[in-house]
Amino acid sequence: QSFKRFTLCLSLYAQIGLNITQICLAKECSEDEVSEIDSHIWVHGVYLHLPPASLTSRVLNTLKPEKDVDGISDLNMGRLVRGDLSKGFVPPIANAVLDLLEKHGEFLRMDKPCPYFYICSCTYVAAVLLRVVTAWKTQSCFSVFISDIEISRAQTPKPVDQLAAEIGVLPEELEAYGRSKAKVQLSLLDRLHTQPDGKYVLVAGITPTPLGEGKSTVTIGLVQALSAHLKLNSFACLRQPSQGPTFGVKGGAAGGGYAQVIPMEEFNLHLTGDIHAITAANNLVAAAIDARMLHEATQSDKALFNRLVPSVNGVRRFSPIQISRLNRLGINKTDPASLTPQEVSTFVRLDLDPSKITWQRVVDTNDRFLRKITVGQASTEKGMIRETGFDIAVASEIMAILALADSLEDMKNRLARMVVGTSRSGQPITAEDLGVSGALAVLMKDAIKPTMMQTLEGTPVFVHAGPFANIAHGNSSVLADKLALKLVGRNGFVVTEAGFGADIGMEKFFNIKCRASGLRPNVVVLVATVRALKMHGGGPNVSAGAPLPREYIDENLSLVAGGCRSNLRKQIQIAHLFGVPVVVAPTIEVKLFNLLSVAFINLYCIFSKSNFLDSVPLTGALMCFHLSVSPSFPQMPIVEKIRTIAQKVYGADDIELSPEAEAKIDYYNQQGYGSLPICMAKTHLSLSHMPDKKGAPTGFTLPIRDVRASIGAGFIFPLMSTMPGLPTRPCFYDIDLDPVTEEITGLF
Amino acid sequence: QSFKRFTLCLSLYAQIGLNITQICLAKECSEDEVSEIDSHIWVHGVYLHLPPASLTSRVLNTLKPEKDVDGISDLNMGRLVRGDLSKGFVPPIANAVLDLLEKHGEFLRMDKPCPYFYICSCTYVAAVLLRVVTAWKTQSCFSVFISDIEISRAQTPKPVDQLAAEIGVLPEELEAYGRSKAKVQLSLLDRLHTQPDGKYVLVAGITPTPLGEGKSTVTIGLVQALSAHLKLNSFACLRQPSQGPTFGVKGGAAGGGYAQVIPMEEFNLHLTGDIHAITAANNLVAAAIDARMLHEATQSDKALFNRLVPSVNGVRRFSPIQISRLNRLGINKTDPASLTPQEVSTFVRLDLDPSKITWQRVVDTNDRFLRKITVGQASTEKGMIRETGFDIAVASEIMAILALADSLEDMKNRLARMVVGTSRSGQPITAEDLGVSGALAVLMKDAIKPTMMQTLEGTPVFVHAGPFANIAHGNSSVLADKLALKLVGRNGFVVTEAGFGADIGMEKFFNIKCRASGLRPNVVVLVATVRALKMHGGGPNVSAGAPLPREYIDENLSLVAGGCRSNLRKQIQIAHLFGVPVVVAPTIEVKLFNLLSVAFINLYCIFSKSNFLDSVPLTGALMCFHLSVSPSFPQMPIVEKIRTIAQKVYGADDIELSPEAEAKIDYYNQQGYGSLPICMAKTHLSLSHMPDKKGAPTGFTLPIRDVRASIGAGFIFPLMSTMPGLPTRPCFYDIDLDPVTEEITGLF
Repeated sequence: QSFKRFTLCLSLYAQIGLNITQICLAKECSEDEVSEIDSHIWVHGVYLHLPPASLTSRVLNTLKPEKDVDGISDLNMGRLVRGDLSKGFVPPIANAVLDLLEKHGEFLRMDKPCPYFYICSCTYVAAVLLRVVTAWKTQSCFSVFISDIEISRAQTPKPVDQLAAEIGVLPEELEAYGRSKAKVQLSLLDRLHTQPDGKYVLVAGITPTPLGEGKSTVTIGLVQALSAHLKLNSFACLRQPSQGPTFGVKGGAAGGGYAQVIPMEEFNLHLTGDIHAITAANNLVAAAIDARMLHEATQSDKALFNRLVPSVNGVRRFSPIQISRLNRLGINKTDPASLTPQEVSTFVRLDLDPSKITWQRVVDTNDRFLRKITVGQASTEKGMIRETGFDIAVASEIMAILALADSLEDMKNRLARMVVGTSRSGQPITAEDLGVSGALAVLMKDAIKPTMMQTLEGTPVFVHAGPFANIAHGNSSVLADKLALKLVGRNGFVVTEAGFGADIGMEKFFNIKCRASGLRPNVVVLVATVRALKMHGGGPNVSAGAPLPREYIDENLSLVAGGCRSNLRKQIQIAHLFGVPVVVAPTIEVKLFNLLSVAFINLYCIFSKSNFLDSVPLTGALMCFHLSVSPSFPQMPIVEKIRTIAQKVYGADDIELSPEAEAKIDYYNQQGYGSLPICMAKTHLSLSHMPDKKGAPTGFTLPIRDVRASIGAGFIFPLMSTMPGLPTRPCFYDIDLDPVTEEITGLF
Repeated sequence: QSFKRFTLCLSLYAQIGLNITQICLAKECSEDEVSEIDSHIWVHGVYLHLPPASLTSRVLNTLKPEKDVDGISDLNMGRLVRGDLSKGFVPPIANAVLDLLEKHGEFLRMDKPCPYFYICSCTYVAAVLLRVVTAWKTQSCFSVFISDIEISRAQTPKPVDQLAAEIGVLPEELEAYGRSKAKVQLSLLDRLHTQPDGKYVLVAGITPTPLGEGKSTVTIGLVQALSAHLKLNSFACLRQPSQGPTFGVKGGAAGGGYAQVIPMEEFNLHLTGDIHAITAANNLVAAAIDARMLHEATQSDKALFNRLVPSVNGVRRFSPIQISRLNRLGINKTDPASLTPQEVSTFVRLDLDPSKITWQRVVDTNDRFLRKITVGQASTEKGMIRETGFDIAVASEIMAILALADSLEDMKNRLARMVVGTSRSGQPITAEDLGVSGALAVLMKDAIKPTMMQTLEGTPVFVHAGPFANIAHGNSSVLADKLALKLVGRNGFVVTEAGFGADIGMEKFFNIKCRASGLRPNVVVLVATVRALKMHGGGPNVSAGAPLPREYIDENLSLVAGGCRSNLRKQIQIAHLFGVPVVVAPTIEVKLFNLLSVAFINLYCIFSKSNFLDSVPLTGALMCFHLSVSPSFPQMPIVEKIRTIAQKVYGADDIELSPEAEAKIDYYNQQGYGSLPICMAKTHLSLSHMPDKKGAPTGFTLPIRDVRASIGAGFIFPLMSTMPGLPTRPCFYDIDLDPVTEEITGLF
């Protein structure tokens, strides 16, 4: 007999080595196939959906589960969703779904002994069942997948103050924003400063396709497995997504399937306003730059001085920000009246060179028409027009600073040091020179506190900072990691992620983030999708919005093997450069269910166990790794640092500097910035600078066309285009709000 | 004997007719002067600060208070700050200060029976005393005034959930944002729909000076008086301030002195992110406009159609937003395949005329260089450059919509109706045509819930929406007023405020806000500062940042009288046009203490009691007023509506339309917008269109140079400059953050 449809649910938690978080299959197949899949070593349970007519006695005899040990249901459902839950939290939806199910006999489950499975997430099961029931009730096609937002909405997050109490955050250290998210105060670091840190896990990926590889999903699945199933304290640290892609091409970024941060709408919309604060701060600097140039162009030294140091009740005083500038200028005076006319002029005139302003405005929208603009065209600006542009908000240097600061004071100092341009005499001009650095710290005073949310299963998550992975370092915040490492304690785990491929995100994690934080990871988890492996193995190009070529839909084991031998191998070698053990987490896309053949699973087994990968089953492995990483970067000249990354990490033969790049490097050396780390703004779509070169290219020279610097954030980088555009039919076409139920539709 | 220094504290609550909220005087004067002030009918208490050496037995005998009836202190302090407090909330600072005071004998108080005074705010007294003690301890000049932020910080707000419980908001209707602010859900309106509304009070002002007249301060002082002192339920509804002025010229806007919303930093910074949400929504529309023009210019009808109505699993479907557009176009089809090529073309081509796009981008920063810009100059935009500009965020039509919407559904419909420009064939193009209206509603889903905060004394306050008072209607939100009117109940009071002078803010309150809400106020409170009265009485120009001319520092009773007879009289007459009783609330600036002569007080008495003002002592008056207002505006043609406002409200002889204005009015009539109310974008600095014409000018013709429309918000308006600039030394120079204590310095 052939079952028309079955649902195969595989638990991520059983074996992270085969990451199938999102698997919820609907496939026509024979009893033998079900049997074969069910008997595989990594398959710990299979759900079957059978039309009532299929429920013959033979089927029932074959599939009838053992008697339920908890005595709740003879369908063996009860203990999955009503048993002992690690967080003491039973989502109402699970019971509602089960009640529905108990009225209908056609849902059966085969299972076999596997301790992980029995404590499997109620959410996970409930959401799967919800979809089954919904499809059944509406008579829609069974193979309609549940959207991420439906799964997210099927779970009610526990109150954030309850979550805080569970993990040891004191009520006075918590600032709730609504019921499901809260900021955690930095004072917690002081209170727990004697507590040993937990284990530190970095999730990185191989060179991705433009569709993304699911690093956040693995990160969340991993903490769910560690927390709810292995009963270990754990914490995920994620980046906050930009709203640009949410309403543009990509959609949301809260993980996916049954490994999500919830509520995912909150995660993807304003959250607690950190990106808005960055936008406000960034654009205050921009307004200050242009206004200052106008005022300097239209006022005498004396008029400028009298306005900048106004007489209040007959007394002129320098503000602390102005005293700092005077000190930098070598004018060690505090009485405004004592400055010579020359000193007054030096003090009041930043004398910014309009052609050397590097500060751009930002907006958190994919607004391509702002990439290059001319400002100052109103008559009130007296002809002081200039060309400039907007970046996406997360590309602001202030975002990179938020991610790297390790205290309020450190953030404030970095904000003050930001270089916005150069004076006509070649001196760098900082935010402090503009008088704006204190106001920036005020605008960012709440943003510096990490935002706490939770996974579908109630594991704590910090969402904090999301710097670009090209012109910045693409990692979530130092402070969130530090807070989480204290909160989980010595035996706990903090899983954090790095953007783009490991050649970029992981390399910057070590050379920039670890340098700032002083932390070192215990292990790197390398995410590799079947799709990306095939691409590196010679598959055709993949692009967002276009149908996936046939090679990606069929099995094509040789393409997968090719990807493993080229890009995956190289990315693992890069991690080994930093002396860290690597665990590979292969993933498969939810919609490509027919790839999940036994041969496929076996191929993964071979690669994850072969000699060139030192992979081990992850959850077991983590506990035995110890600190073996030294993130220190050699104190070499800027050019040598760039060359080292190009050769050792990317596999280039050498680098080639343009004259402009050479001049910039000379200038940065002169200004004393030579010791800063390098933040390569390379494409993430290839190990080389050429997006089309997949696999592990060799024999190329990396051309450095320009070099820039984020002095406040503390790194040197070349620049790429930083403002995405909107497609013809952006995501927003489908996004809507039901004014009565207040439900959001079409979002992701 | 002459006392070297004394502090005179006058209670706002004793007599709102003399609004002296901020009065905390330090003045050298004789015993006779003290005596004279003390004996005035409106002076209910005097605090004296005496150096220890002055405490001779004669002084003690003169000033020794009656024995304290509560027996707490022989200095008669205890019952002021430790007595029965209406909110059951004793701020810790009050006790701390009193403990300090009790150790030092030099603070004495003369008082006389006055019931209001005895229940005077503990905060008010405590903050005054705090300043005295601080000045005394640091030996600094006694006449240093406490800054608004010091007063704000001296009070610990009660937890917002406690406030909610006190006023009857259920826990499930509250969404806390930190500990001192929360959003209130709109479902409360349904729950309380049978509850009768409270009394509705509008605070407006006379034509202001550029320094502001303190309407918010009066609003807050009034609810403090009603709530804490007359034991009546009351609620203040305020506008959320823009961050532009906060970091530019004006500083914060949370009230002032002892009548503030606290914490004032929160009020003036990001609050709960509503303005950021508006910025995000506004700029998504802008990005959609330019991206759409680019896509239409570079794609065939078929390519556009295939992308706008993509094939998902082989099926093309219109989204609900697209069905709406088809209906507007008269194409009543739902199957994408059934459209004729002509219909496809009509559907996919908005055909926006680049020269007729009225939608601007916004930023919540005073960034003058964005007033007029050219966008699209990067090569990726293929030469589609055009001139446009940014407005300050609160000038966005979306802000006006937030303020006028009376439900989520109403907001969503208004967002969909917003006209962003005109097609080449002259058709208005809406946000819904761009496919973006659902996404806008999603971005605004939290912003529509009013934010609750509290006054220094714990009275509840809604802070919600802050539309510009020129191109928009300058009033806080309809929803906040409605929620508050239900919460206070039949015998309670809701005090709301209108921006600018009454000729603008109040006129729009009646003709635009009341039309949208269906509400009618019971009374208008008209705020008039001594400064503004003098200006209208013939005083010289006043400008922000410049020293105040002598006329404003000296007594100059004749100038005050002139202002009362001209501008104040006219503004009262305007209120009478709407059939509402008026209470005048004269105010005096805290730093002009020496204006508080007995003659001055008497002058106020005369004006506030003379025949042409129907003022009555406010707190007594409010209870006896009943609904007498009809806000309906005659259904007349656009031109007649403009003429009526110009003649009846401003006192113009007539209006003069430019040809452009005439053409626009014809177009709006054609499009069916003729029934919309008018929102005059006139200067707020004069009753006329000429800022320098003070008093009550007559004999002028109002020139209407252009007319525009906010179709979503629902009004027609002419446009003025909407992007403020930064001065040479913006406020941000003084704004700083102590990274250790996390205290903000220099803010306000």
